[in-house]
Amino acid sequence: MTDTIVAVATAWAPAAIGVIRLSGPEALSIALRHFRFRRPRTQPRPRYAHHGEIWVENQLLDEVVLIYFPKPHSYTGEDVVEISFHGSPYILRRALETFQAAGARLAQPGEFTLRAYLNRKIALDQAEAVATLIQAQSEAAHRLALSQLRGTYFQKVRQLRQNLIDYLALLELELDFSEEDVEFASRSQLKMLLSELQGEMERLLASYRMGQAIQEGIPLAIVGEPNVGKSTLLNALLGDSRAIVSDIPGTTRDTIQERLFIGGFELRLIDTAGLRENPSDLIEAEGIRRTLKAVQEAFLTLILVEAPRFDNLKTLMAYAKKLLGELPPNYLFIANKSDLVPPHHPIWSVPEVVKISARQGTGLEELQQRIAEKLTALGTSGEALISNYRHYAAFAEALEAVQEALELIEAGRETELVAQAMRRAAYAIGTITGEITPDDILGSIFSRFCIGK
Amino acid sequence: MTDTIVAVATAWAPAAIGVIRLSGPEALSIALRHFRFRRPRTQPRPRYAHHGEIWVENQLLDEVVLIYFPKPHSYTGEDVVEISFHGSPYILRRALETFQAAGARLAQPGEFTLRAYLNRKIALDQAEAVATLIQAQSEAAHRLALSQLRGTYFQKVRQLRQNLIDYLALLELELDFSEEDVEFASRSQLKMLLSELQGEMERLLASYRMGQAIQEGIPLAIVGEPNVGKSTLLNALLGDSRAIVSDIPGTTRDTIQERLFIGGFELRLIDTAGLRENPSDLIEAEGIRRTLKAVQEAFLTLILVEAPRFDNLKTLMAYAKKLLGELPPNYLFIANKSDLVPPHHPIWSVPEVVKISARQGTGLEELQQRIAEKLTALGTSGEALISNYRHYAAFAEALEAVQEALELIEAGRETELVAQAMRRAAYAIGTITGEITPDDILGSIFSRFCIGK
Repeated sequence: MTDTIVAVATAWAPAAIGVIRLSGPEALSIALRHFRFRRPRTQPRPRYAHHGEIWVENQLLDEVVLIYFPKPHSYTGEDVVEISFHGSPYILRRALETFQAAGARLAQPGEFTLRAYLNRKIALDQAEAVATLIQAQSEAAHRLALSQLRGTYFQKVRQLRQNLIDYLALLELELDFSEEDVEFASRSQLKMLLSELQGEMERLLASYRMGQAIQEGIPLAIVGEPNVGKSTLLNALLGDSRAIVSDIPGTTRDTIQERLFIGGFELRLIDTAGLRENPSDLIEAEGIRRTLKAVQEAFLTLILVEAPRFDNLKTLMAYAKKLLGELPPNYLFIANKSDLVPPHHPIWSVPEVVKISARQGTGLEELQQRIAEKLTALGTSGEALISNYRHYAAFAEALEAVQEALELIEAGRETELVAQAMRRAAYAIGTITGEITPDDILGSIFSRFCIGK
Repeated sequence: MTDTIVAVATAWAPAAIGVIRLSGPEALSIALRHFRFRRPRTQPRPRYAHHGEIWVENQLLDEVVLIYFPKPHSYTGEDVVEISFHGSPYILRRALETFQAAGARLAQPGEFTLRAYLNRKIALDQAEAVATLIQAQSEAAHRLALSQLRGTYFQKVRQLRQNLIDYLALLELELDFSEEDVEFASRSQLKMLLSELQGEMERLLASYRMGQAIQEGIPLAIVGEPNVGKSTLLNALLGDSRAIVSDIPGTTRDTIQERLFIGGFELRLIDTAGLRENPSDLIEAEGIRRTLKAVQEAFLTLILVEAPRFDNLKTLMAYAKKLLGELPPNYLFIANKSDLVPPHHPIWSVPEVVKISARQGTGLEELQQRIAEKLTALGTSGEALISNYRHYAAFAEALEAVQEALELIEAGRETELVAQAMRRAAYAIGTITGEITPDDILGSIFSRFCIGK
């Protein structure tokens, strides 16, 4: 970390502004070699936006604004210089070449954030959250990344790990005095701590599927017999999503047909085959098998029926069971074509059923709200959700070690073995927040970043 | 201009940084409604990079850096606030919506620069140059846009227009005293001024073809008989260009096969049909006609021959005349396959011929240098080149008016008529720099901008 890195920090396409960022001991001197202040002065004021010019080989390259963030109060904790150019790819490329020639090295992806971590400006899981935050496409994914960035994410686990380490110190004291057979660490209190850790980690591990889904799109199935209005409903829901996605060029991960944005969540539509209450042949039976599989994958299944055909919840549930073999774990009944139902029809007084007319566009707002409520109830809004496989694997290892420690205490085994298991748990949790970091972990984390961050 | 505008000023794709810019009387109050300072304070210091947070509906949206540029020392001349977010399209979209809800209006393309012009921060032709600068893809196009942005571009014309207006004042004084038959404005000096203006504008008008070419790619033709190595040479030259272009995503205007970057110039390859010294049939004769057309369009023609076949420049020129009917206005002889020529072959001592081996990659650097020299000699580096049709049309009209004024003076016609022609000339030049601006000109100029500038 003795060298100075440089990168374009904004997206690399024609725009009003393009920002180049330098970080390292030579950041300022490299920048000043090519910067001329508009007003007579030789050194920038800290954090002040100076108007000036960048000159390359006695030619003016651009009129710019330069800001100097002296260490340690900068993003990376090192001296940082940010220069706002006109957002011309030609200008940015020339400037980048110029600063490289002056001694800066082109930054690796994520290297600015890596330096922030190495300079203890942020913890490792916070650093990871920066990359996730930039990629987040829905409110829920954004909130998840932000809570991780703020460090509130694993606060409880951090605290429990600290307690674990305190107990470890006591156990190691006992080992030092092993000939005297003293007990500094209360075994019953230690068991309570380990049980609490176990519970917390089981809860976190269970949240992994949801955390992943929030980032990559929550699987959603829409089932219904032919002609109940599935595609009309889908298009009505997709309308809003298209508007959202078309605002964000360069972010299309799947085709728009497969993605829905509802109530701050991104939903990924699982393909379901056609369904019929009484399948007439083998091909239709195969369709049912595929649909059941989709329903099992889905976090939420929308069961679409024709409003005029149903009077109450009981017949609806019986119908759904027959259609799907069994009721999905999470579902929502939607009664379409409610415009064909007279005002006093009993279906209107069944609150569990969302009444809509996909064709006329009525009831859709309520439907979106009900979907969002269902998803929220699934635990999407909890602060501590795991969304990262590295964290999942580390917690799984920590949980195993904690369980081992508990069993060893229960069985009255040697303190040395208990301490060893506890050390393993503390180590595994420590790799998440970066208190402990094997080098290979760092490499794989920061390569996922965009350059310039 | 009493409202406040807002836009994303950086490219709209995931990146380390994304900047939102507000301009107008409410810029600061709108920003502060959602910004919380990291350190306890309520107002930003001018041009200081404040760390803080943007909150939306009691939810944290992002950690940001906010800079306040108080009027009149800002880009637009109004109060401007720039906020650097994490470059997440989701975050930028939410922030934009939030500032709109707080009273800012989404900026039209170029509206920030339009305000800079209306607040007399820059002249109209400088404003136009901002858009051109951002789109510039080669050093020559960049230099052209920059000199225009700096206002040095039409400095001489500006000065001559001022002189014209001074004379007009004198002429109008004469008209006021018309009954007394006085001559305040020396006719001989006026004729000198008009002649100087005429010469300057003729020179500028003649530069239009080159100015356009620098921005859009200078037309280049490569001619040669089959098997002289045209496509090998082309691929060798394209190699470097591909590297340049692949650095700049989102800027592909033509297919890479049609574009070359040589010595800071962007060249556009004109398609030429095959050539043969002795065309054997009608189809080949048609090919020649097409090639001759291409050579006429081209600013430079590379004539590729086989080195072993030629001893001196005279035979080469005779060969080229036979091949092309006549010599192109600008050309460069390239002798390929020089690796097959023994060291004492006379071709080595003909300096006008560039010796290369496209297959072995030798001589290519010299070739690129010679091409750049040729292009520079064509007047590409002059400061005042017209590259904009609006300017071309205005100068053409001004030239016509100046010529009319000269003829009227020559013919001893009424002062009133001379003054009228001179007024037309001053008006036409004035529309370029924006001293005079019919509203419809403004609309068409700024709609070419990207939003956020």
